[in-house]
Amino acid sequence: MMLTGLAQGLFAQGKTAIALHGGAGTITRKNMSAEMEKAYREALTIALQKGYAVLKSGGSSLDAVEAAVVEMENNPLFNAGKGAVFTHEGKNEMDAAIMNGANLGAGAIAGVSTIRNPIKTARKVMENSEHVMLTGKGAEEFAAQQGEAIVDPSYFYTEKRWEGLQRAIKAEKTELDHADTVRKTSPKTGYLIFDEGKKFGTVGAVALDKNGNLAAATSTGGMTNKRWNRVGDAPIIGAGTYANNATCAVSATGHGEYFIRSVVAYDISALMEYKGLPLKKAADEVVMQKLVKRGGEGGVIAVDKNGNIAMPFNSEGMYRASIDTEGKVFIGIYKDEK
Amino acid sequence: MMLTGLAQGLFAQGKTAIALHGGAGTITRKNMSAEMEKAYREALTIALQKGYAVLKSGGSSLDAVEAAVVEMENNPLFNAGKGAVFTHEGKNEMDAAIMNGANLGAGAIAGVSTIRNPIKTARKVMENSEHVMLTGKGAEEFAAQQGEAIVDPSYFYTEKRWEGLQRAIKAEKTELDHADTVRKTSPKTGYLIFDEGKKFGTVGAVALDKNGNLAAATSTGGMTNKRWNRVGDAPIIGAGTYANNATCAVSATGHGEYFIRSVVAYDISALMEYKGLPLKKAADEVVMQKLVKRGGEGGVIAVDKNGNIAMPFNSEGMYRASIDTEGKVFIGIYKDEK
Repeated sequence: MMLTGLAQGLFAQGKTAIALHGGAGTITRKNMSAEMEKAYREALTIALQKGYAVLKSGGSSLDAVEAAVVEMENNPLFNAGKGAVFTHEGKNEMDAAIMNGANLGAGAIAGVSTIRNPIKTARKVMENSEHVMLTGKGAEEFAAQQGEAIVDPSYFYTEKRWEGLQRAIKAEKTELDHADTVRKTSPKTGYLIFDEGKKFGTVGAVALDKNGNLAAATSTGGMTNKRWNRVGDAPIIGAGTYANNATCAVSATGHGEYFIRSVVAYDISALMEYKGLPLKKAADEVVMQKLVKRGGEGGVIAVDKNGNIAMPFNSEGMYRASIDTEGKVFIGIYKDEK
Repeated sequence: MMLTGLAQGLFAQGKTAIALHGGAGTITRKNMSAEMEKAYREALTIALQKGYAVLKSGGSSLDAVEAAVVEMENNPLFNAGKGAVFTHEGKNEMDAAIMNGANLGAGAIAGVSTIRNPIKTARKVMENSEHVMLTGKGAEEFAAQQGEAIVDPSYFYTEKRWEGLQRAIKAEKTELDHADTVRKTSPKTGYLIFDEGKKFGTVGAVALDKNGNLAAATSTGGMTNKRWNRVGDAPIIGAGTYANNATCAVSATGHGEYFIRSVVAYDISALMEYKGLPLKKAADEVVMQKLVKRGGEGGVIAVDKNGNIAMPFNSEGMYRASIDTEGKVFIGIYKDEK
């Protein structure tokens, strides 16, 4: 088995490339301790290597993006799987999606609280059901039937995220009395809708394998203090996740509502297909022009059918990493890292 | 107040147009009694008039599409609101979405069982929350807070739909023993995934108002015998529902999984924006070319910023109706009606 994998790698003709993100937002050197920065860079490197190892051994882009995302879901540093943020009710409600650029197959789940690795169930939805999107208890029942690891909701508890929720609730109450505070609650609902410090936690990966197949995967815990079983862009095919061998694979991270309304991931693909834009121009037009005009903060990672990589973001930082077709490794957090 | 409305209508400068659908699928003269055909034509006419009256009195396209969809949600002939099909567990789980072409605002709910008019709550999500998509119990709680009519789930019971579920369950069991039967269960899951007779029940409306604002709305009970809290394309912005004043408003009806994977509604808009196609060509390219190649059965209704209307479908029939900018009324069911 090892030999087969190695042989496939040695004889691989096509280029491979991978990129991943661990969330975007107000991420600056000022707000980051040296220790935390090191932890994030290490975590990104490990996830990147997991995905890249799949590609190098001749594996599929689907296996590569799943492996990278599972690694980040299992790491409490990221807002996905273990480490997911809390809803207003003190629950963890996770969303995930995966898409296969070879046949436009797609799978997504939303609002699940007991599935250890949501991205694995999203893939099962794609491959072992007739559906694209399952939600809540139904998605959990499907996961159990498929033999996916089901955990007690307490598995997702982390002290850091719990404290984040308590601060959000406290800030919400405080702001009711002090309307001039910097961190604003929603004028419509009076509740604090952002992750603390405007960090949009999501993880995602995109990859091109040696057979020319593209894939994208995204997983998230959503927004701290979210209510009403809110669903963001991560599990919405075309918004947070999209892949098509004819164009590109995209995974997004940011203020999900804006990304849904702008159909961000598919829009990048459409600009390539219909206007003939190269990946970087298409991604820049959507993330740095359209989204900025519309007030949508965040970014995307994208790879095209030739292995070109684009990782634009309009926020102050984005946890990101990539290995291009030449094998060049990049790990970045802040805006000035190129 | 009445005078204001009339005056607005009299002084209205811009063109208005409206189109709606009540589902697509295997709808043929052979399968339709004269009595049923008459009932559908009357129901479509009433919904059309409700929406058109709003436009003619100077009202907004959002009010027009909401009025038309509410009328169809309240009519048990259609698979939305009262008349929604049953899930495998014998429940009614409804989805709806609305989008405002003027500002790309959007609201959607999925998997609700107690909201009398899902489209009205979708609009409240758009206008009175910071979110785009709410699901399940959370969406129901939000609806109640907003003063929307909450009903006992039994409100949605209709004998016709219950019998449809019983037939689906029976056919599913039968097919386990007779693999050569015409109506196939899913090879992956062994369950019957289509509405009986491949009728994709959904209702939707699109409109252009005198101020040049476009809007789209879609509402559905989904698929008979669906499992695992499955969500189709109706509440997915970009797939089943999309509106943008720069291009068009679209509401889709069909095999939702295919419509999600093809990002159908936004794709029509993108073909207009990026390739400069007129509405009809853009809608035909997506519905009659791309979807057909990919095996996705169904259709769309669409109106552009100039009031042009397109209603292509690749199934045998689609319940549809429209009033164009000249005031010409069209009601159609079968393929040969133009």
